[in-house]
Amino acid sequence: MCELLGMSANTPTDLCFSVTGLTRRGGGTGPHKDGWGVAFYEGKGLRLFHDVEPCATSPIAEFVGKLPIKSKTAICHIRQANVGNINLSNTHPFVRELWGRNWVFAHNGQIPNFTRRVGMYEAVGDTDSEELFCDIMNQVRQNLPRDAMPAQLTDTLVSLAQEYARQGVFNCLLSNGDWLFSFCSTKMASITRRAPFGPACLKDVEVNIDFAAETAPDDVVSIIATEPLTHDEDWDIYERGEWKLWQHGEVIAGGKTDVPVHAAEATMTAPAGMPVDAKA
Amino acid sequence: MCELLGMSANTPTDLCFSVTGLTRRGGGTGPHKDGWGVAFYEGKGLRLFHDVEPCATSPIAEFVGKLPIKSKTAICHIRQANVGNINLSNTHPFVRELWGRNWVFAHNGQIPNFTRRVGMYEAVGDTDSEELFCDIMNQVRQNLPRDAMPAQLTDTLVSLAQEYARQGVFNCLLSNGDWLFSFCSTKMASITRRAPFGPACLKDVEVNIDFAAETAPDDVVSIIATEPLTHDEDWDIYERGEWKLWQHGEVIAGGKTDVPVHAAEATMTAPAGMPVDAKA
Repeated sequence: MCELLGMSANTPTDLCFSVTGLTRRGGGTGPHKDGWGVAFYEGKGLRLFHDVEPCATSPIAEFVGKLPIKSKTAICHIRQANVGNINLSNTHPFVRELWGRNWVFAHNGQIPNFTRRVGMYEAVGDTDSEELFCDIMNQVRQNLPRDAMPAQLTDTLVSLAQEYARQGVFNCLLSNGDWLFSFCSTKMASITRRAPFGPACLKDVEVNIDFAAETAPDDVVSIIATEPLTHDEDWDIYERGEWKLWQHGEVIAGGKTDVPVHAAEATMTAPAGMPVDAKA
Repeated sequence: MCELLGMSANTPTDLCFSVTGLTRRGGGTGPHKDGWGVAFYEGKGLRLFHDVEPCATSPIAEFVGKLPIKSKTAICHIRQANVGNINLSNTHPFVRELWGRNWVFAHNGQIPNFTRRVGMYEAVGDTDSEELFCDIMNQVRQNLPRDAMPAQLTDTLVSLAQEYARQGVFNCLLSNGDWLFSFCSTKMASITRRAPFGPACLKDVEVNIDFAAETAPDDVVSIIATEPLTHDEDWDIYERGEWKLWQHGEVIAGGKTDVPVHAAEATMTAPAGMPVDAKA
């Protein structure tokens, strides 16, 4: 299994605090030692960092954690390999161009023996996650107009996510730089920080931050992660089958769909319904 | 205009020495201050770094220059913007997935008002270079089988390159991680280092290296750049219209095609026939 971290903000925001918390789980406080990656959008452009080293000890992760990269949308992933070797081509997040935008995807879970349907996007590596991403991209390209509105888009994304969640565990983050789609198959949590901003303390490392000193009154910054990253804030825990479409730090669409519980989950994720927090 | 740097080697090789030389031209010894980028292949996977800061002063460039990243194929580009704003989406090298591989492209030159033909690949940014790359990818996907042999592939790439070079300046590096294609419209140079390895000194910064201490007897490492990076080695200067396909550090195919001289070149590149070295 892996850990996911996403950010949606209404102003370019520094993700260092959350990245610092998440990366400690990469071989540090967590077992996710098989590489990590992050994609920061700057407009339609991307800053990508991928590494096969445990991010808790990766020089690149340490460097990125200190870079004051400001982004409105970002997706980060740390990996515990269960399918596919440990190499760069199997390291999330994955990127493809569609309709003149960079689409970025990261997946938490496992769908054994998944094979994408025929389409122009193909996996470079050998993970089920990249096959899933390519299937999504092929389905979106084949079934939606390039100017698809969020409602159309989420109809397609949710039906695909539900289809995947019936075959295995499918927690995901997907973005085209304009919006951020999040789906909870077994675990996902979010928090929206806005004025009045307060302090926060990371669960995984002794780091405190006073967001009031880091933000402007109008800033709205939402963090979406497979597990809450702070222990002194009130995170919203997604329900099984719940999805949210984020834009500029706000939820612009959301809903819940039925997804089954898989026997295999017991060994790899939190039992259905248990607050993810309780696992920390 | 910009600077290009490519590497083809028969063993994973550290490109730090050449990157150090090239990046000094990014706002240092050269005018190329409008961002830079580099793509290192590790198997079929990629390590990508892009920045809009002048690479001579970019913290990311300094960091990358010190990383002992070892790759058999790499493409680096530093930019002096002439088309498109200075932002990440306009920063080379550009990447697209085709037939399950990452294709990487970087361009030196300018082809005013170039517009790609219809196809699935679209530019994310607004440079002529990315339009050219998308046109190449669309033509390759539409006209070649996925198992195209180098001969078939180069026929297509060379005819496209010649077509572009008739419309403007088109020096380029293109790779799918297996081979590295290089085309000289106005300037390109290469050097192949093999045993017995000797010392070398960068032109752009006082750095010396003894390759004998860095390499094994069987290593073959070729560097391809728009201008020679060292002043004490004998670089091969490409002729106008010359192309080479590199693999494992060796030229596996090459040739020369007719390309015209453009009046505009005088202000942006070396006069035809003048050794690129003479411009240093």
